[in-house]
Amino acid sequence: MKENRSKNIRSEFQVTYEYDVFFTKELFSLENILLSEFFQSKKTDKMKKKVLVVIDQGLFNFHNKILESIPQYFQSNVESVQLIEDLIILPGGETSKNDSNGWELVVSAINQYGIDRHSYLMVIGGGAILDMVGYAAAVAHRGIRLIRIPTTVLSQNDSGVGVKNSINYFGKKNFLGTFAPPVAVFNDSSFLVSLEDRDWRSGMAEAVKVSLIKNKVFFEWMESHVSELTHRDLTTMEHLVYECARLHMEHIQNGDPFEFGSSRPLDFGHWFAHKLEYLANFSIRHGEAVAIGMALDSIYSYLSGFLQESELNRILNLLRDLGFQFNHPVLLKNGKENLELALKEFQEHLGGKLTLLMLEGIGFPKEVYTIHLSLLESAYDRLVGWK
Amino acid sequence: MKENRSKNIRSEFQVTYEYDVFFTKELFSLENILLSEFFQSKKTDKMKKKVLVVIDQGLFNFHNKILESIPQYFQSNVESVQLIEDLIILPGGETSKNDSNGWELVVSAINQYGIDRHSYLMVIGGGAILDMVGYAAAVAHRGIRLIRIPTTVLSQNDSGVGVKNSINYFGKKNFLGTFAPPVAVFNDSSFLVSLEDRDWRSGMAEAVKVSLIKNKVFFEWMESHVSELTHRDLTTMEHLVYECARLHMEHIQNGDPFEFGSSRPLDFGHWFAHKLEYLANFSIRHGEAVAIGMALDSIYSYLSGFLQESELNRILNLLRDLGFQFNHPVLLKNGKENLELALKEFQEHLGGKLTLLMLEGIGFPKEVYTIHLSLLESAYDRLVGWK
Ligand SMILES: NC(=O)c1ccc[n+]([C@@H]2O[C@H](COP(=O)([O-])OP(=O)(O)OC[C@H]3O[C@@H](n4cnc5c(N)ncnc54)[C@H](O)[C@@H]3O)[C@@H](O)[C@H]2O)c1
Ligand SMILES: NC(=O)c1ccc[n+]([C@@H]2O[C@H](COP(=O)([O-])OP(=O)(O)OC[C@H]3O[C@@H](n4cnc5c(N)ncnc54)[C@H](O)[C@@H]3O)[C@@H](O)[C@H]2O)c1
Ligand SMILES: [Zn+2]
Ligand SMILES: [Zn+2]
Repeated sequence: MKENRSKNIRSEFQVTYEYDVFFTKELFSLENILLSEFFQSKKTDKMKKKVLVVIDQGLFNFHNKILESIPQYFQSNVESVQLIEDLIILPGGETSKNDSNGWELVVSAINQYGIDRHSYLMVIGGGAILDMVGYAAAVAHRGIRLIRIPTTVLSQNDSGVGVKNSINYFGKKNFLGTFAPPVAVFNDSSFLVSLEDRDWRSGMAEAVKVSLIKNKVFFEWMESHVSELTHRDLTTMEHLVYECARLHMEHIQNGDPFEFGSSRPLDFGHWFAHKLEYLANFSIRHGEAVAIGMALDSIYSYLSGFLQESELNRILNLLRDLGFQFNHPVLLKNGKENLELALKEFQEHLGGKLTLLMLEGIGFPKEVYTIHLSLLESAYDRLVGWK
Repeated sequence: MKENRSKNIRSEFQVTYEYDVFFTKELFSLENILLSEFFQSKKTDKMKKKVLVVIDQGLFNFHNKILESIPQYFQSNVESVQLIEDLIILPGGETSKNDSNGWELVVSAINQYGIDRHSYLMVIGGGAILDMVGYAAAVAHRGIRLIRIPTTVLSQNDSGVGVKNSINYFGKKNFLGTFAPPVAVFNDSSFLVSLEDRDWRSGMAEAVKVSLIKNKVFFEWMESHVSELTHRDLTTMEHLVYECARLHMEHIQNGDPFEFGSSRPLDFGHWFAHKLEYLANFSIRHGEAVAIGMALDSIYSYLSGFLQESELNRILNLLRDLGFQFNHPVLLKNGKENLELALKEFQEHLGGKLTLLMLEGIGFPKEVYTIHLSLLESAYDRLVGWK
């Protein structure tokens, strides 16, 4: 007779995480005491903790004065920690996640400078280098305190305020990584002025996304500030970044922060976007691909009878007015043949049953578990032809 | 005037972890339905999740029938998951953590067999390979479900039931790793029969440790079962493993599971043990070094006036009767000169102020924040000369 003659002991516990995302300007100017107050507030004993700084080369090219202002700032304003004088400048962008040299170098520096679990790694740059350095911080000594200073719109309103990090491996995006919250994030809007137009725009796709699934008021605010946003008005962008980050963080807190389940509401529009990025060999920005993915899913939602035509038009108009294009030539060439494959890959990625977010209205998402391919193909044709 | 003109958003959330440690015999015999019941209980949808198995070569040499019994078991008893037929056999022991080939191979297999976040990686072996495979599971896709099947005394009662994993890097022990609880642990006592005497004994050091800092009753139980334990009575060992695992898990649950603070109560006797392992170039077992470390700290506790002489004698007698030696020649040659350095390194490792555990009695630990070196040296001399 088959039986189960075992004993067992159950382990059950909770781990609490907390961190602040600060919104500021000129973080390293001597007048700004935000960062020094932060370090002071974290002081628990007499030991001086160390701070190792890693800077994105692409950012540094435009803001090279930080090579002086950072040491000056720590010298004048920060008593409670010790800055490692050697500031590390590394290439940013996707290459920093693709080859493992950058990651190796950061881990070596952690070893060389004796950065321990209670010391800080501070990374300044775009979402890619934040992901890579965050992953190094998460695994060295089983986790060093990470301070993120995101310098792109995307990283300030989305990637940099969350709990994930990663590098690419086996040519696969984000194959290695962890869930590891930072100890703090400092969003300094003054870094954004030097962004290429494409990066300025691309980051706004996540703001549209989060408004579509969470908050119609924010959507309407964007509708009425298109001109300021496209003309790079910094104060308007600060508000967009703040609102988007807030909604994003609210979601993480109240949801499933470490994604143990298989629902991924923040991935609205992303299943096709991921495929597009690959098809374009990453010559398209993430936000550009997400804009196309959201447009496709909005049209599909309309064709399925969930979403009203007037709301569909508002969505597509906002995206277009912000400068996004739905007919990127390279992509749309073989996009249609890849719809089915993209769905399949996304399902594999979820590792469970297919769960996609569609829209019932602006601010009102709807989970669906099956997709009608013929309807999706019609949505695709409409998207490409959309004027 | 210096001021702080920033806004901030706070993120605060909790993550809940739970897992069972099961105690059983002949896990893969067709009569034992424990494992099949486990997989059945985890089923959430129709998707068949995959299971990839990694086996410790050192274990396999003695239990090679598992190459047949595992596939048979899955075929006959387990409907809800799909076994990857290719069972991976890798060298175990510390080498599996030292060179990164093993880790690379496991991560490649995860990629090759399409193991996703909801699939399982099942590792069977000693604490070293459990640590290495656990680290691969923790970072691939930001975390795959890990099932540990520990096969040594140490891994069944201590390392395998906790939340840490790691590999060595830059020649430094556990330099890379994460905190990542398994989804389940299966302690199968039938694996223990093939252990070398040294490994059988060495694992008992952690049981003595946990009794000294947590539970006098358990200490006294060991005192009265020395003969069964040294003569390798399996039923007695099962009780030791169960009690030690239980106390260990209770501690993790009620303490600071991911070690955000700098107190490390489970490290009793370990500050010097770590140094000894290095001085001996790892020719000494972890438990053998821990036994010496505990003896040293017990004598220090006595010399400091915390611990009574009668209790000190009981501690040293139990350790000696279990077969531990305090005068390992290689180590004790230059151990004394290294006391101060060992303290310093342990403090660096904690990353904060020095916090060591000493004893006020059997089952009653006491935190101390300073060590008197001359007293420690006297303790050392007594230890080496102890008969
Ligand atoms: N961790 C997450 O949760 C998450 C979420 C979404 C996206 N991401 C990742 O974020 C990455 C994309 O981030 P991104 O959009 O910030 O791009 P990016 O980091 O690739 O940066 C784009 C370019 O801008 C440069 N740069 C950075 N700041 C600048 C500045 N202020 N002025 C001028 N140039 C500057 C960089 O050097 C780089 O060349 C991707 O790797 C993506 O996978 C992560
Ligand atoms: N993760 C943690 O919290 C934690 C805690 C303590 C120790 N550890 C780690 O555990 C490791 C030590 O583990 P260990 O003591 O189990 O030694 P081990 O894993 O090195 O195994 C010792 C030897 O026994 C062999 N072996 C395994 N099972 C066997 C069996 N049933 N019969 C015969 N041979 C068998 C192995 O192949 C190996 O050669 C160290 O790397 C240490 O750092 C981790
Ligand atoms: Zn995105
Ligand atoms: Zn130990």
